[in-house]
Amino acid sequence: MTHYEAALNRLNEALHKIKAFDYSTSMLFWDASTGAPKSGADARSQAIGVLSGFQYQLLINDQMAEDLSVLLENYSELDEMNQVLVSDTKKDYDKLTKIPMEEFQKYNMLISKSAMVWEDAKGKSDFEMFKPYLTEVVDYLLKFADYRGFDGHPYNLYIGDFEDGMTVDQLDVFFAELKARIVPLLSKIAAKNKQIETSFLFEHYPVNLQDELSRDVLKMIGFDLERGQLKESVHPFTMGVDIDDVRLTTHYYENDFSSAFFSTAHEGGHAIYEQNIDKKLQGTPLATGTSNGIHESQSRIYENNFCRSESFLEFLFPILKEKFEIQLEGVSSQMFYEAINRVEPSLIRVEADELTYSLHIMLRYEIELALISRQISVDELPDVWNEKVKAYLGIVPPDDARGVLQDVHWSEGLFGYFPTYALGSAYAAQLAHYMGREIDIEACLADGDFKPLTKWLNEKVHQYGSLKKPNELIEMITGERLNSKYYCDYLELKYSKLYGLN
Amino acid sequence: MTHYEAALNRLNEALHKIKAFDYSTSMLFWDASTGAPKSGADARSQAIGVLSGFQYQLLINDQMAEDLSVLLENYSELDEMNQVLVSDTKKDYDKLTKIPMEEFQKYNMLISKSAMVWEDAKGKSDFEMFKPYLTEVVDYLLKFADYRGFDGHPYNLYIGDFEDGMTVDQLDVFFAELKARIVPLLSKIAAKNKQIETSFLFEHYPVNLQDELSRDVLKMIGFDLERGQLKESVHPFTMGVDIDDVRLTTHYYENDFSSAFFSTAHEGGHAIYEQNIDKKLQGTPLATGTSNGIHESQSRIYENNFCRSESFLEFLFPILKEKFEIQLEGVSSQMFYEAINRVEPSLIRVEADELTYSLHIMLRYEIELALISRQISVDELPDVWNEKVKAYLGIVPPDDARGVLQDVHWSEGLFGYFPTYALGSAYAAQLAHYMGREIDIEACLADGDFKPLTKWLNEKVHQYGSLKKPNELIEMITGERLNSKYYCDYLELKYSKLYGLN
Repeated sequence: MTHYEAALNRLNEALHKIKAFDYSTSMLFWDASTGAPKSGADARSQAIGVLSGFQYQLLINDQMAEDLSVLLENYSELDEMNQVLVSDTKKDYDKLTKIPMEEFQKYNMLISKSAMVWEDAKGKSDFEMFKPYLTEVVDYLLKFADYRGFDGHPYNLYIGDFEDGMTVDQLDVFFAELKARIVPLLSKIAAKNKQIETSFLFEHYPVNLQDELSRDVLKMIGFDLERGQLKESVHPFTMGVDIDDVRLTTHYYENDFSSAFFSTAHEGGHAIYEQNIDKKLQGTPLATGTSNGIHESQSRIYENNFCRSESFLEFLFPILKEKFEIQLEGVSSQMFYEAINRVEPSLIRVEADELTYSLHIMLRYEIELALISRQISVDELPDVWNEKVKAYLGIVPPDDARGVLQDVHWSEGLFGYFPTYALGSAYAAQLAHYMGREIDIEACLADGDFKPLTKWLNEKVHQYGSLKKPNELIEMITGERLNSKYYCDYLELKYSKLYGLN
Repeated sequence: MTHYEAALNRLNEALHKIKAFDYSTSMLFWDASTGAPKSGADARSQAIGVLSGFQYQLLINDQMAEDLSVLLENYSELDEMNQVLVSDTKKDYDKLTKIPMEEFQKYNMLISKSAMVWEDAKGKSDFEMFKPYLTEVVDYLLKFADYRGFDGHPYNLYIGDFEDGMTVDQLDVFFAELKARIVPLLSKIAAKNKQIETSFLFEHYPVNLQDELSRDVLKMIGFDLERGQLKESVHPFTMGVDIDDVRLTTHYYENDFSSAFFSTAHEGGHAIYEQNIDKKLQGTPLATGTSNGIHESQSRIYENNFCRSESFLEFLFPILKEKFEIQLEGVSSQMFYEAINRVEPSLIRVEADELTYSLHIMLRYEIELALISRQISVDELPDVWNEKVKAYLGIVPPDDARGVLQDVHWSEGLFGYFPTYALGSAYAAQLAHYMGREIDIEACLADGDFKPLTKWLNEKVHQYGSLKKPNELIEMITGERLNSKYYCDYLELKYSKLYGLN
C-alpha cells in the first residue's frame, strides 16, 4: 500500500465514523420534531453535546491534517469520488480550524444569545434590542472571512458555504434580471385588479383526508414510501439519513387545503432527490444533495413547476372533488387553478406566492451584500428594508416584526443562505426548460404521470448526490451556467396567461 | 484535589459520555420499533456498530482500570451514590475484560448464528437442528463462569447479571414453595371444570377507542404523559432514556380487548418506575430501575395486583360499558372480572394467565439450573421439557415448536433471565402485602384512585433507582428478603374465591 493509499483508508474510515454520529444526531432531531416529550430536551442536548465533541475530534486532529495534506499532494492519483471526498473534507477542516478556537466559541455564545434576543425583539417589534447583536454578528462574519480567506468578495465565502462555487458576480446578474422583469410584471398584475375567489381553500378539510391525500401525492410523484416515512411536525422538513431511509414531514391545518398539500409536494421533491442517489455513494458524505440551491430546485420543480401547473391541477381536480365534495361544491377546475396560483404581495416571506417569493429573497440578498460590503450599517436596516419592500412588492410593513425582524436567519449568523431559496426556483425553471426539449411535460402532468419527469431528474440530477457541484452539474445538464432567463420566462408566461396580460 | 477525587471526576465524566451513547442507541432502537422504514436497517446497524465501539472504549481502557482500582482502595471515603457507581462500573468492567477478547468474539459469532438457527428450527419444529448450538452455548457459559469467577454455583453469576445478589439458594426455596402450593391449586381449579364465558373479549374493539382507553388508564394509574410518550410497536416495551423522557409502547388487536389494555397497564408500571426516580440520580447510570426482577414487580403490581383486581374492574366496568356499549351488551361486571382472570393452562408462556405464568418460569428455571449443573444434557431437553409441562400444567406439547423451542432466550445465551419474570410477581405480592398494612388498597382500587398506591411505591421503590440493590431494597421496605409466601397467599386467595374452592 502506498503512503497515500493508507491515508485514503484512514480518511474513509474517519468519514464512516463521522457518518454514524451524523446519523445519530439526525435521528435525535427527527425524534425531537415528531412527538418527543418537551421535558426530554435537556437529556437530548446533553447527549448531542457529547456526540458533537466526538464528531469534532474525528474530523479535527493531527492525523487528519497530515492525511489531507498527503492526499492533496496525490490528488490526481485519486478517482473522482475520492477527489471530491478529499476536497469536501478539506473545506470542512479549514472552516473549523482557520478561525481561532477561542473566537469561535465566543461567536457561538453570541449566536445562541442573539437568537434568543431576536425572538424577544420580534415579539416586541423592537429592532433597537436586536441591533447590537446583529452588529456584532456582522463584525464577526467579516473577521472570520479574513481568517478563512476568500476570492473576490467576502460574501462569496458565505454563499459558498451553502452553494459551492456561487459568487456575488453570478448573483448580481441573476437578481438584476429578476428585478428588471418580475417587478414590472407584478405591477401589471396589480393594475389588472383581477378578483380571484379563494374562500373554498379555507373550508374544513379533515386532517385524516389530507393525510391520505399527502400519501397519494407522494406516491404519484415518485417517492417510495417503503424506503421512507411521512410524519407531521410543526415546520415541514426532509431528512435523508440514508438513501434507503428518507423521512419527510408536513403540517396539516384543518381549515387550509393548500398548506399541507404543497408542503408535501415540496418536501417530496427534496425526498425524491435523497432517495435516488447512486448506491455507490451510499454511506459516504456524498450521499446527499449537492447544495442548498440544487436541493431547493428539486423541491420547487415538484411543488411549483409540476404540482401548481394548470395541466396537473386539471388532472387532480376530479380526484379532489371526489374526496372533498362539500368543500369544493360549485368550484370549477379553472377557479381552483386560479385560487392556488393567485398573486398577492405579502409582508411575510414564508406565506408568499410563487411569483413574489423571489422578490422577498432579492431584497434580503441586496441587504446582506450591502451589510457585508459595509455599504449600509445595521442602524439603517429598518428603513432600507421598508423602502425595498415598498419598491418591489408595493406594500409597507406596519412594524419591524412584520418587516426586518421577521426571519431568524441573521440572528443565527446565516448569511448567504437566503439566495439559495431563489436559486432553487431559477434552477428548477432552467432544468424544466431543458427537460421540455426531451419530454412533453404538460402531457405527462395532464395524465398525472410523473414517471418520465422523475426518471429524467433521477438521471440528470439525483444520481450524482454531492459528486458534482452546482455550477458543474447545471452546466453538464443544460450546457450553460445558471441563467435567470428561463425563470423569468416561466413566470411571465404563467402569470400573463393567468391574469390575462397582453 | 486528592488522588481519588481526580479519579472520581474522570469516572463521572466517562459515565456521562457513556450515557450519551446509551441515549443515542436507545433512540435508534425506539425509532426502529415505532415506524422506521425497514430498508433503513443497514444504515442503522452501521451507526450502532460505530457508536458501540466508542462506548466500549470509554469503559474499557487503562485509565479506567487504574481509576477503578484507586476508587476501590478509597471506597469508604465515597458517599453512597459514588460507592454504587464505582462498584457497578467495576462489575461491568470485569464482565467485559475477564473473558479473553478472542473467545468473547467467537461466542458473539456463535450467538448471532445460534439465534438464526433457533428461528429456523422453531419454524420446522426441529430440535436436532438447534441442539449443537445450544450445547456450545452452555459450554461457553460454563467456561466464562470460570473466567469471571463466582460464589457457590456458576448459575449465581448469570442470575446476578439480571438480579444483583440473587442466588440459587434463594431461588430454590422460592420455587419449591411455588411448586408445593400452586401446582395443587391449579389441579383443584381444573377439577372444578368451571365454564367461564370469554367471547365478548374478542368482539371488534376499534383501535382508536383502545388507544384512548390506553391513554386514560395511563393517566389513571399515575403515568405523566407530558414527560413521556405512548406509541405502538409489534412487541410492547418501555424505555426510560431519562427521568423526564420515558417512552412505552403497546400493541392493539382489533379483535381482542385484553391484550393492549393489560400491556399498557404492565408497561405503565415499568414507566412509572422510571419516571419517579430521584432527580439527584438524573443523568447517571443509576437513574433506572435496579434490576429486572424489581422492574417486573412494578409492571406486575399495576397490571395484576391492581388492574386485574375485582375492585378495580368493578370500578372500570361502567366506563368500559360506555365506550364499548355493543361489545359488552349483556355482560355483567362479575362476568367481565371472571373472563379477564380465567385460568387456562397453555403451552405458550407469553399467552399464559396470571396463575399459570410462574409455572412456565419454574420449569425453565429447573432446566437452566440442571443444564448449568451438568445434571441433564441438551439431548434430554425435549423429554424433560414435556414431562415438566405435563406435571405442572397438566398438558402435553404436540411438538417442540410449542415446547422446548418456543422461547428465543437460550439461543441468545440468556440464562438467568427467566427467573426474574417470576421474581417480579413475587416481589409485587410481597410489596402489596406490606402496602396493605398502611393503605386500604381495595378501597383505593374501588374508587379508581391510584394516587396513594403510586405515592407509596414512589417513596418505597421508585425514588431509589439503582441506588439500592434488590435484596437490600426489599429488606428495607418489608423487613425481610424475598418471601414467596405472600405470592402464594395472594394467588390462593384470589383464585379460590374466583373458582369457588373451599
